[in-house]
Amino acid sequence: MPNSSLQTLLTQTPEEGFALAVKLAQKGVEVTQPSEEIRKVLRPTYSRNADSLTAASHVIAVHFQTVAAANNYWRAWMPYYQ
Amino acid sequence: MPNSSLQTLLTQTPEEGFALAVKLAQKGVEVTQPSEEIRKVLRPTYSRNADSLTAASHVIAVHFQTVAAANNYWRAWMPYYQ
Amino acid sequence: MPNSSLQTLLTQTPEEGFALAVKLAQKGVEVTQPSEEIRKVLRPTYSRNADSLTAASHVIAVHFQTVAAANNYWRAWMPYYQ
Amino acid sequence: MPNSSLQTLLTQTPEEGFALAVKLAQKGVEVTQPSEEIRKVLRPTYSRNADSLTAASHVIAVHFQTVAAANNYWRAWMPYYQ
Amino acid sequence: MPNSSLQTLLTQTPEEGFALAVKLAQKGVEVTQPSEEIRKVLRPTYSRNADSLTAASHVIAVHFQTVAAANNYWRAWMPYYQ
Amino acid sequence: MPNSSLQTLLTQTPEEGFALAVKLAQKGVEVTQPSEEIRKVLRPTYSRNADSLTAASHVIAVHFQTVAAANNYWRAWMPYYQ
Repeated sequence: MPNSSLQTLLTQTPEEGFALAVKLAQKGVEVTQPSEEIRKVLRPTYSRNADSLTAASHVIAVHFQTVAAANNYWRAWMPYYQ
Repeated sequence: MPNSSLQTLLTQTPEEGFALAVKLAQKGVEVTQPSEEIRKVLRPTYSRNADSLTAASHVIAVHFQTVAAANNYWRAWMPYYQ
Repeated sequence: MPNSSLQTLLTQTPEEGFALAVKLAQKGVEVTQPSEEIRKVLRPTYSRNADSLTAASHVIAVHFQTVAAANNYWRAWMPYYQ
Repeated sequence: MPNSSLQTLLTQTPEEGFALAVKLAQKGVEVTQPSEEIRKVLRPTYSRNADSLTAASHVIAVHFQTVAAANNYWRAWMPYYQ
Repeated sequence: MPNSSLQTLLTQTPEEGFALAVKLAQKGVEVTQPSEEIRKVLRPTYSRNADSLTAASHVIAVHFQTVAAANNYWRAWMPYYQ
Repeated sequence: MPNSSLQTLLTQTPEEGFALAVKLAQKGVEVTQPSEEIRKVLRPTYSRNADSLTAASHVIAVHFQTVAAANNYWRAWMPYYQ
């Protein structure tokens, strides 16, 4: 099941934006290793290795920067900044 | 105990912003390894490895960039920049 | 088959922007190791190593930041921000 | 001795800003490994490993980006840019 | 043969900007290891290691962010954004 | 010989800005390992390791982003952007 096509970086909330960042990080893995079967084989090992988890969290963090900037940090609804 | 939903990136102080960055880094690990049990098993090892700690600090630093930008670096209260 | 010359960072959609980020990440490898033959030899190993895949996804994430910023996060079509 | 609470990202000079970046990098380690005793045990090893030192310098660099941006790169005192 | 002095970050096209990013990444290696002889000895090994190639591509990606921003993402010639 | 105090991020040229980025990367190592003697012992090994050199180049790249932004990418002298 490939990721659906990426139509927009805009989300309603930071929570949804974080979920999009996770999806983008996975998409980066999928384009490099398209076989879902192979990815599934790798998963049990790396998901039980702390350094692998930190590295995965790092990639998510980079994408979250992008998504957060795209959404103007979800500040539009905050009167404080207007 | 999952992280509560992420509603906003705005915080009152840099200290709270840093705490949010830590939470985001952990959230990135949790989505990759949802089992709290497994994460607890990994913790004693990586938290006593200097390179693992530096890597964790790195992810926090990336998220802190995002949170700090979202809060306009908490400069709104600083007359100097107005 | 070298990558074609890079003429623009602008794309119609985030999906195309992500594909460009992937291409840029590959281009960075190609300039360092121009031999397609050698790169092909390396591929089966690293594409079955979870940490290598995460590292590849990381580079894509950095380029996606650039491409997304270049495209103003594809926000031009969003009336909300105008 | 925990780091004192982080009240502001503003500093008078780049030198002080760099010191703050170092403090933030250490803070990221401290939240992950709160025991000062354990951190002290780790220090002699990683501080004599070149790759560990480079990794530590990397985290400082990321925080220095944040602190420098927060201070508008300390340009306010530079007539050139006004 | 040292890199020629860096006079500007501006380039005519993204393609030239990418080439500049590659040059900057090499320059960072050269200042750390000025001996061209030693660098040549290292090259055959790391250029046949997939993780080393990904790491090199990563550094290029970071510099490409800088060069692309310096050139305003080469958008000046795009009527769309004016 | 410690680095002299950091007074400004502004430089006349990109070349000088790159030199400052190198200095900042070294400064990050020095604050973590203040002993020049120990750093000298480590140098021969890491400066002959390709991955260590790439990692050092990476840190320089991050600082160069900061320095380049601080100097508005040295664009002030470019009539094109005015």
